[in-house]
Amino acid sequence: MRNKIKPSILPGFMELNPKEQLIFNDIVNKITKVYERNGCLPIDTPIIEKEEILLAKSAGETEKQIYSIAREDKKQALRFDLTVPFARYVVQHMNDLVFPFKRYQLGKVYRGERNQKGRYREFYQLDVDIVSINKLDIRNDALVISLAAQAFDSIGLNQYTFQISNRKILSGVLSTLEIDNKQEVMSIIDKYDKIGKDKCLELIEQAIGRENSSYIIKLLGLAGSNLEIIEQLRAFNQRLQEEFNINSGKEELNIGVFELLEGINEIEEVIKTLSILGVSDKNYKIDLKIIRGLDYYTGTIFETVINDNEKYGSICSGGRYDNLAELYTDTKIPGVGISIGITRLFFVLKEIGFLEKYKNSSGVDYLIVALGETLVQCVEINKKLQANRFKTEIYLNGGTLKKQLVYADAQGIPKVIIIGENEINEGVVVVKDMLTGEQCKVCIADI
Amino acid sequence: MRNKIKPSILPGFMELNPKEQLIFNDIVNKITKVYERNGCLPIDTPIIEKEEILLAKSAGETEKQIYSIAREDKKQALRFDLTVPFARYVVQHMNDLVFPFKRYQLGKVYRGERNQKGRYREFYQLDVDIVSINKLDIRNDALVISLAAQAFDSIGLNQYTFQISNRKILSGVLSTLEIDNKQEVMSIIDKYDKIGKDKCLELIEQAIGRENSSYIIKLLGLAGSNLEIIEQLRAFNQRLQEEFNINSGKEELNIGVFELLEGINEIEEVIKTLSILGVSDKNYKIDLKIIRGLDYYTGTIFETVINDNEKYGSICSGGRYDNLAELYTDTKIPGVGISIGITRLFFVLKEIGFLEKYKNSSGVDYLIVALGETLVQCVEINKKLQANRFKTEIYLNGGTLKKQLVYADAQGIPKVIIIGENEINEGVVVVKDMLTGEQCKVCIADI
Repeated sequence: MRNKIKPSILPGFMELNPKEQLIFNDIVNKITKVYERNGCLPIDTPIIEKEEILLAKSAGETEKQIYSIAREDKKQALRFDLTVPFARYVVQHMNDLVFPFKRYQLGKVYRGERNQKGRYREFYQLDVDIVSINKLDIRNDALVISLAAQAFDSIGLNQYTFQISNRKILSGVLSTLEIDNKQEVMSIIDKYDKIGKDKCLELIEQAIGRENSSYIIKLLGLAGSNLEIIEQLRAFNQRLQEEFNINSGKEELNIGVFELLEGINEIEEVIKTLSILGVSDKNYKIDLKIIRGLDYYTGTIFETVINDNEKYGSICSGGRYDNLAELYTDTKIPGVGISIGITRLFFVLKEIGFLEKYKNSSGVDYLIVALGETLVQCVEINKKLQANRFKTEIYLNGGTLKKQLVYADAQGIPKVIIIGENEINEGVVVVKDMLTGEQCKVCIADI
Repeated sequence: MRNKIKPSILPGFMELNPKEQLIFNDIVNKITKVYERNGCLPIDTPIIEKEEILLAKSAGETEKQIYSIAREDKKQALRFDLTVPFARYVVQHMNDLVFPFKRYQLGKVYRGERNQKGRYREFYQLDVDIVSINKLDIRNDALVISLAAQAFDSIGLNQYTFQISNRKILSGVLSTLEIDNKQEVMSIIDKYDKIGKDKCLELIEQAIGRENSSYIIKLLGLAGSNLEIIEQLRAFNQRLQEEFNINSGKEELNIGVFELLEGINEIEEVIKTLSILGVSDKNYKIDLKIIRGLDYYTGTIFETVINDNEKYGSICSGGRYDNLAELYTDTKIPGVGISIGITRLFFVLKEIGFLEKYKNSSGVDYLIVALGETLVQCVEINKKLQANRFKTEIYLNGGTLKKQLVYADAQGIPKVIIIGENEINEGVVVVKDMLTGEQCKVCIADI
């Protein structure tokens, strides 16, 4: 006897048992239906892409995490998100598309992250993106968020918060302050939740000095309702203009304040449109600490946490990217997208006990058992039941009636139809209720 | 301006435009529903597996085609089918499964094949497998074929033929002939369609000599209806026994004839059960030239061609594997599976013009257009329509009414609801039929 291999998968990969998988698929199906109902079209792209496409816009972190393929012919790797390939798809298939183009896509993506609980190296994303030629109305940023809200509602999840920001706000302030190392400040703020408020403010002060940092600290400290924050942002902008004497003629100042103002106007429009689109205002909150690691965002950005479970991080993120297609074309193709990390979401929902009460569409309704040579009749009855939209199966592995009832019980099949030779002659079958144990004879004609 | 990258994918990968993708997804959904209706449970496994698991049972060809991952931590690669990972899954999750375990699985698999039309390096398989502990009734071999038949029926495809064989037949004959290089003979027969009958028979004669080859030629030449072929097989077996004086006491002979007889009995049972299960007998045919390249099959094997389009090869294949779990466990876990190569199938259906007349579930029913500040009312009406299961979208990218009608037309949306400020005051909206161009006012209350 040869040595046995231990059956196992690689660390960082999720694999479910069939009962969990049923729930997982039900979640995916419900969300997909929301997207279809709202006119999103499906696409599918290869999991393997040319490296030059995957890495064109990425910083070092992505490159370190990438899964490269060891084939000699071409530099190729596994995609790390669905957005970068989507931008490539849009330009490549431009002539087949109608703009604005709304697409949804479900697919696995790969990141060689450090192995830790709840972080997966292979995970599903379920994305919606809207792109258009030249101009994409800001209200689409609210639309994608509202689609995600409908998605969560469809699976019965309502304790979540979209945390919304706009890159132009922080960027505009930093430009006004004439700060060059914007990226450094942003990556410090990106770690706010991890390192805590005090440490974060300390690092910002180190990076850009006490005076400059006071503005950033003020900005991050804005609080209140969404509309109150917008009001405070306008006041903040006003004061900034005054203090920096914006009519001094210095171009950076004008550009910075213009960008800040654009950011404020955009976030206001997003917030107002969310309300019009029917998203409950308890489900979204302006949060200027949101940064988003991926470099390609240019305006609105958002993440989503499950309330009181912020420690699990974002289950759904995205934002506006106005320049992602510039790699391929001079045509402007602005876009906005939202991505639900389905694998992560499933993990979190399991951890917080949400799945225990999750009601998914049921499994098999009837198990059909042949006693003696009655397979022909079993098939007939099976056909009838399926024509009436029941899920059924015929037990085809022999053995005693008892063994077959044990199977029904273990599978959670509620009813068993027993078709014996004697009964067939009488024109009846026996229907057994697995829950109560009761059984009764039913005329074949009545099924 | 930096240099542009040409947006493109790697050769050997399929990517569809959204209209094609809608059909592709509709095909997948319909087949999936067939499997669910018949009690198959979904599973999903990682696309990346440990190489030791993927390559444990494979011959050199698989190894050459495999996509290895260039990461240092572990030897890992992309799966080349769903069956090998499934065997691993079954043993690993044995305690969570109820046997017989019927599973379906949709997933991408990877084979670095030579690049040619209709051959894909990344392609979807949609598999059903049934496994059990110790014993799996031969009628399950017919069941998986009948599920594939229902799958094809569900998409309106009925001009196809399952070509069915059983490895024990040829193997039993070769054992009786005391031929050691079985594998060589099988790979010659495997090329029958490619090299033609004469060349094939010539090569067999070269491999095992004129006298021995006469038996194989006879076997491959059996013709007639399925039941006639089975009769001829029994006669063939009878003569073989006589000619080789089976009571000579030579063990190979007994083993060979026993195997042959088992093969004949099994194929007979499969054929009979297919009929009972309601598969039309014009859709299946015993074909002893079917070999199947993958090494793990042990009994029933089958391929499927679309009638009059045999040149495209098999769109759906599978068979019985009694020993695939032996890598991991001493417990016997016999199984039988069938795999529809969805990507290949889609390619062939497109080539033969089947997709042109394919009716898939429709897209968006209504485009809702706001004229002026009526987004609030648009959202209300949108909600009503969606509650009544219509697919709808609100146009959110501004521009003239004409531009929005052009969008509806290009997307093939049959009706547009135009919601203007004046109409709102009258309590009506305008509904425009994009096909006839007619438009009429409808009371909002009546929608």
